[in-house]
Amino acid sequence: MIFFVVGFIVAAEGVLLLLPALTALIFLEREGLAYLATAAGCGAVGAALILLCRTGRQTIYAGEGFAIVALGWIAMSAAGAVPFVITGEIPNYIDALFETVSGFTTTGASIVENVGTLSHASIFWRSFTHFIGGMGVLIFIMAVIPNLADRSINIMRAEMPGPVVGKLVPRVKQTAMILYVIYVAMTLTEMTLLIAGGMPFFDSLCYSLGTAGTGGFSATPEGIVTPYSQWVVAVFMLLFGVNFNLYYLIIAGKIKAALSSVELRVYLIVAAASGLFITFMIWPDHYENFSDALRHAFFQTSSIITTTGYATADFNTWPMVCRALLVLLMCTGACAGSTAGGLKLSRVIIGLKHLRAEFRRLIHPRSYTAVTFEGRQVDQTTLTGVSVYLILYVVTLGVTFFLLSFDKLGFTENVTAAVACMNNIGPGLGLVGPASNYSAYSGFSKIVLSIAMLAGRLEFYPLVLTFLRATWRRK
Amino acid sequence: MIFFVVGFIVAAEGVLLLLPALTALIFLEREGLAYLATAAGCGAVGAALILLCRTGRQTIYAGEGFAIVALGWIAMSAAGAVPFVITGEIPNYIDALFETVSGFTTTGASIVENVGTLSHASIFWRSFTHFIGGMGVLIFIMAVIPNLADRSINIMRAEMPGPVVGKLVPRVKQTAMILYVIYVAMTLTEMTLLIAGGMPFFDSLCYSLGTAGTGGFSATPEGIVTPYSQWVVAVFMLLFGVNFNLYYLIIAGKIKAALSSVELRVYLIVAAASGLFITFMIWPDHYENFSDALRHAFFQTSSIITTTGYATADFNTWPMVCRALLVLLMCTGACAGSTAGGLKLSRVIIGLKHLRAEFRRLIHPRSYTAVTFEGRQVDQTTLTGVSVYLILYVVTLGVTFFLLSFDKLGFTENVTAAVACMNNIGPGLGLVGPASNYSAYSGFSKIVLSIAMLAGRLEFYPLVLTFLRATWRRK
Repeated sequence: MIFFVVGFIVAAEGVLLLLPALTALIFLEREGLAYLATAAGCGAVGAALILLCRTGRQTIYAGEGFAIVALGWIAMSAAGAVPFVITGEIPNYIDALFETVSGFTTTGASIVENVGTLSHASIFWRSFTHFIGGMGVLIFIMAVIPNLADRSINIMRAEMPGPVVGKLVPRVKQTAMILYVIYVAMTLTEMTLLIAGGMPFFDSLCYSLGTAGTGGFSATPEGIVTPYSQWVVAVFMLLFGVNFNLYYLIIAGKIKAALSSVELRVYLIVAAASGLFITFMIWPDHYENFSDALRHAFFQTSSIITTTGYATADFNTWPMVCRALLVLLMCTGACAGSTAGGLKLSRVIIGLKHLRAEFRRLIHPRSYTAVTFEGRQVDQTTLTGVSVYLILYVVTLGVTFFLLSFDKLGFTENVTAAVACMNNIGPGLGLVGPASNYSAYSGFSKIVLSIAMLAGRLEFYPLVLTFLRATWRRK
Repeated sequence: MIFFVVGFIVAAEGVLLLLPALTALIFLEREGLAYLATAAGCGAVGAALILLCRTGRQTIYAGEGFAIVALGWIAMSAAGAVPFVITGEIPNYIDALFETVSGFTTTGASIVENVGTLSHASIFWRSFTHFIGGMGVLIFIMAVIPNLADRSINIMRAEMPGPVVGKLVPRVKQTAMILYVIYVAMTLTEMTLLIAGGMPFFDSLCYSLGTAGTGGFSATPEGIVTPYSQWVVAVFMLLFGVNFNLYYLIIAGKIKAALSSVELRVYLIVAAASGLFITFMIWPDHYENFSDALRHAFFQTSSIITTTGYATADFNTWPMVCRALLVLLMCTGACAGSTAGGLKLSRVIIGLKHLRAEFRRLIHPRSYTAVTFEGRQVDQTTLTGVSVYLILYVVTLGVTFFLLSFDKLGFTENVTAAVACMNNIGPGLGLVGPASNYSAYSGFSKIVLSIAMLAGRLEFYPLVLTFLRATWRRK
């Protein structure tokens, strides 16, 4: 059953790989052949898996849901890295894998020194992996595969970010479709606005795909240049960091319900406050013009809190307190149910409310304080889930940092690379900052970081559970 | 009631301040007068508080227990800093306060450039604050004040480190006395061994006091020099990181019960494994002689895991992976119920077991896995307590790091200073490393670090709850 669905994923990737091949055709690039060949390979392997592992069973259990997601993402990354190697643009397979994992997990950490040396096909593919990874491949597959399963919520639960995953409508398939329609519509809107501002069609497409997935790969060596396009991208990054359920509520006419979301309010307040704080820390010392300071501050805040990782300025040169704030925002992340990474604000809010309830309990041992969130009482399972998630988060961060320390880079790099990759941001501080890239790390460290990126994107459980024997013990 | 007990604390400190005055008398130092004057002041203020706030009430509620501990520690630090200013050895009061808080919280972070410039009285006082702070002032007071309260377990609970605080014997007063007897006996044993190895009496005394409290202030500019004394101190640091309840069990003849402690086993395994790992990372590149490498590695591991912070070598120059490991050990700390800081291993173990139980639940949603520790099932209150503690820990660390970033030091310094102070270690990495000190930080940062040290030593709740209005709202 697991390999049956993984087969579907690989086959679907084969279809998706035709898009960069098409791009190559338009720009008359030889690199298209590499993408065509990989697409064919994916199609063949996928079809074989589907035929060989066909099963009459329709239900997917919780453990299988995790395994499908983990193995699906690994297979996808392994296959998606192949074209980079064939074209010779990233000759080392580990580097290519790092780049692809970074793409699918919407991290945007790159080992490419100069994006100008890549073919259009590869630039498109990099940005497109962000788009696919942002909403989730499996959610895409659920939207298109006919009657996959009545319990496919177990897949969705394993792939969607956030402490609680709900269905918008009773059927998972329709939920997945609605999410994708909103996603594509927003991406097209951003693209249109960028083109209207004078950005070339291809660049607009790539930057919009990267924004949508909160990824962060650049499409051009010079980045996002004009103030207009910077504002457009800054606003859309922020929009893609909002819980998509709220957009559905707005479409359904429940605007008041959408706007009363506690997480949304906290999100906007944190983003606005951080943006203003940074503005006044970098103006007038770093930017003479107030509007420049405001724009760069908001762009960077929006980019980091949504874990996108685009940069219009090298924040490595900003005051230390701005860098510290950005590192903390990397960890909190944006809203659950968005394409952003990080802890997710809803977890942070529930955690802090839990803390307050515990304070009350310590003072008044006989009274009971319930934790409420979004107008409902948070049940014990969710509270435990959030706490345990924090443990997993801290442990993974510690292990990643420790393993990176075998390499020759410094403390700042190792800490921020671990934070930036696990939270799917992209740039860290120091030598892995926005003006630099991850090529200084060794192959071993790149594999460690790739695992950290996958673990962060899939919120730890799928990877951990799949590789824990306990999962299969009872079979 | 609160100020009544705080009065006792201040008066007790007045008595304790006579010891450095006596030291000055022995060494014929003028600085003794400063200690005498401060002792007199403490006595007067303490007596006034005791007389003014006398109350017939004998019980101490949970909220009051926290407030007594928080205010007691603050008052003690504020008064203990005065002699340094009067003698002119640390002319700035904020610096002196930092040094004193660092002493009482057994951190050992210093702003003194060269300990050789201090008088014997001040060197003794610095080391003695470690000794007092290690076991807890209030536990000392409970041991000596006649029939203080039937609910004074609320004070003990607020001051003693670890997730669960138990009484060794039914009465709190006797428990406190037993703990102090073990504490003093172990300190005297270490001192005797150091003297036997040729260390001068005064230095042996100071280093033993610092070891007992897992503090870390040096008594001599050259530190602990001979291999013999380094091994003695290394072993005793490790011994003071063990839960004192186990020593009581051993004295009571229940040796088997003591040795079956899970926390003790994990502690010894982690210390041994880390020590060996570091040995093989620094040998033969950093130390030609294997026994030198082994000694320095074990000394440093023992010093860091017990959050003492003595240094025989500048680990800033060791390979990055050793530094990373030491930073991680700073966070875990040693056993609950010892004088060490950090998260405490029992919390780490319970957290990881909780994680495993959650994994099981996700795979088999209908089964229930209990979390067990030291042979007993961990109740939900303790599990919640550990989780919430981690939230508090991470939040405090983040805030401390952010506030330090207003200063002019680097990322490495700010992160490790926050970690080293909150966990009561002492030295961090970079400019706050073992070969350096905290004098580079501004007054504001020193206050932030002082608060972090107090918060870490008192395990957050006393400080947070005392200053949260909620505590007093229902009165």
